[in-house]
Amino acid sequence: MDQHLLAYFAASAKDIDQAMRDNLAGVQSPVLKEILRHALESGGKRIRPQLTVLGYGLVDAGESKSPVQVLNLAIVFEYLHAASLLHDDIIDHATIRRGKPSANTIWGPGPVILAGDFLHARALSVAGSLCGATGVSLVGGATEAMVEAEFLQADIAMRRDLSVDQYFEVIKGKTGALIAAAGEAGVFLAGGNNAQRRAIRFYGEKIGLAFQVVDDLLDYQGDPEVTGKAVGNDWLEGKMTLPMILALMEADEVDRPWLLGLLSGSREVREEQLSEVGLKLEGLDGFLGARRVAQELIDQACSALSVFSPSREREVLVGLAEYVVNRKK
Amino acid sequence: MDQHLLAYFAASAKDIDQAMRDNLAGVQSPVLKEILRHALESGGKRIRPQLTVLGYGLVDAGESKSPVQVLNLAIVFEYLHAASLLHDDIIDHATIRRGKPSANTIWGPGPVILAGDFLHARALSVAGSLCGATGVSLVGGATEAMVEAEFLQADIAMRRDLSVDQYFEVIKGKTGALIAAAGEAGVFLAGGNNAQRRAIRFYGEKIGLAFQVVDDLLDYQGDPEVTGKAVGNDWLEGKMTLPMILALMEADEVDRPWLLGLLSGSREVREEQLSEVGLKLEGLDGFLGARRVAQELIDQACSALSVFSPSREREVLVGLAEYVVNRKK
Repeated sequence: MDQHLLAYFAASAKDIDQAMRDNLAGVQSPVLKEILRHALESGGKRIRPQLTVLGYGLVDAGESKSPVQVLNLAIVFEYLHAASLLHDDIIDHATIRRGKPSANTIWGPGPVILAGDFLHARALSVAGSLCGATGVSLVGGATEAMVEAEFLQADIAMRRDLSVDQYFEVIKGKTGALIAAAGEAGVFLAGGNNAQRRAIRFYGEKIGLAFQVVDDLLDYQGDPEVTGKAVGNDWLEGKMTLPMILALMEADEVDRPWLLGLLSGSREVREEQLSEVGLKLEGLDGFLGARRVAQELIDQACSALSVFSPSREREVLVGLAEYVVNRKK
Repeated sequence: MDQHLLAYFAASAKDIDQAMRDNLAGVQSPVLKEILRHALESGGKRIRPQLTVLGYGLVDAGESKSPVQVLNLAIVFEYLHAASLLHDDIIDHATIRRGKPSANTIWGPGPVILAGDFLHARALSVAGSLCGATGVSLVGGATEAMVEAEFLQADIAMRRDLSVDQYFEVIKGKTGALIAAAGEAGVFLAGGNNAQRRAIRFYGEKIGLAFQVVDDLLDYQGDPEVTGKAVGNDWLEGKMTLPMILALMEADEVDRPWLLGLLSGSREVREEQLSEVGLKLEGLDGFLGARRVAQELIDQACSALSVFSPSREREVLVGLAEYVVNRKK
C-alpha cells in the first residue's frame, strides 16, 4: 500500500478505535470488557469501518451528520466482523488469531459466544439509531447472508465438481456481504441515492471477492516470510480454491483424475506432491487465470465508482482496490 | 391456567407459529431450516410473543397496523428467546431441551451457533422494519442485558453471601429484560405513550422475576410427576436460589455454617441431606418467604396495568400473572 494511503488509513483507524472505546465504556462486566478488548484490539486496518467513512465522504454534500455519527455507524461493521470471528474461532476450534491466542482459548467457548452476541446486538442497535430500519436491514441482511454462506459452504465442501459460480456464491456471502453493507451504510447516511447505494455495494462485493481470490493465490505463491503463513495450507487441507477450480477445467483425462485423487486422498500424500501440484496448476493456467479474475473484479469495482464525483475518497477507494489485488500479504 | 385463558393463548399461539413459518419460508440452506424448525417448534405457550400481541391490544385505538404486522413484531421475541436457548444449551453442554435432544446434540455446536446468529439478525431486522430505531434498541438492549446478566451470574455464582438484590439483578437481566421488551414493543407499535410503555415494561419485568421465584420453589417443592423434573436439582448443584437466600438471612450461628458448608461441599453429601435441608428451609421461612415475594411481584405487576383502560387484553394479562404464581409446573 502506498505511503499516502497507509497514512490515510492509519489516521482514520485511530478515530475508529477511539469511537469503539467510547461506545463500549458502559459495559458492566469486567470479563466481558476484557473479551471485547481482546476481540477489537487487533491492530487491523479496519477496512470495513473505513469503507463506511469513505462511502459517507463520497456523497456528503453538506449533510448535517457529525463526524461522531459517521464513526459510530462505521464501528457497527467492525463489531459484526469481530463477532463473526469470535464465533468462527469456536466453530473451527482455532487456537490462534493474528498471532495471539484466540479468545476461546483464553476464556472458553461460553463467554465468547456471549461476547459475540453482545457485539451483534450492539451493532444492530447502533445501526438502528443512526439509520433506522434501513440500517438494521442492511446489517441484519449481511449477517443472514454470512450464515447462509457458511451452511452452503458446509454443504458443498466435499464436492469436487465445484463450479466457479458456486465458489463465488460462498465467498460473496462470507466476505462480500459485510463489506458491501459497510460501504452502503455510509452512502445511505450521507443521503446517497439508489444508484449510488448500488454502486458502492457493487464495489464492496467485488473487492471482497478479489480479496479472497488473492488469498487463494498467496496460499500457493506467497512468500512465507512476508505472509507469515506456511505455503500450501489450502491444498494440504484438500480445499478447493479458485486456482484449482480453474486448473481442473483445463485439465485432461490424465491430470484431472490425478488432482482429484490427491484432493480426496491423505494429507501426507498431498504434502509430498505439493511442489509437483504447484507446477501443474501453473501449467494449467490456474494461477494466471485466478489473477486475471481478481484483476477483472477490481476493474469492475473501480468503474462502478464513476457514479460519484471525483473526490479524495474516490481516489482512496481506487487505491484500496489496487492494494487488494497487488498485496503480498 | 383456566380454560378461557388456555383457549385464548392456544389460538394466539397458532397465529404466532404460522407467522414464524411464513417469515422463515425464504431460508435457503436445508440444514439451517431444520435447526430453526427444531428450535421453534417447541409447543411452548409463546409467552413472549403473546405479550407483544396483548401489549398492542391494550392500547390499539383504531391504529392502522394489520394483524400480520403485530404478529411479525411478536415473533421477534420468540426468535430472540430461541436464539438464546440455542446458545445457552451449547454453553451448558445441555443434551436435552423440553424432553427432546438439544439442537447441539443433533447438529453439533457450529451449526447451532450460526443458527442462533441467524435468528438474532432476523429478529432485529424485523423489529427495525416495524418499529424503526426504537424497536431495534428495545430488542438490542434486551439482548445486551441478557449477556451482561450471564456474566454477572458467572461472577457471583460462587458467592455464598448473595443478597436478594443481587439475585434479582441477575434474573432481571436473564429473564425479565426480554419479557419486558416484548410487551413494550407491542404498546409502542400501537402508538402507546411513555407512561403506558413504562407500565407494560414494569409488568413484564415483575412477572419475569415472579416466574423465576416460582421456578425456585417448584425445584424444592414441585411434584415430579407434574413438573417432569427431579426434585432438588438447584440444591444438588449448589445453586443459591431465593428460598435459600431468605433462609440464610434468618439462620442462626448453627444453621448458617451448616447450610453454607453443605453448599460448598460434595454433591453426594448434599444428596444425602436433601430432605433435611428441605425441612430446615421450611423452618426458616425460606419457602413461605419466597412465595410472599412472588405474590408481591405479581400484585405490583397487576396494579401497573391500571394505566390502561379495561379490556379483554388487560384481563388476560392479570390472568397470566396469577397463573405465573400459582402454576404447578
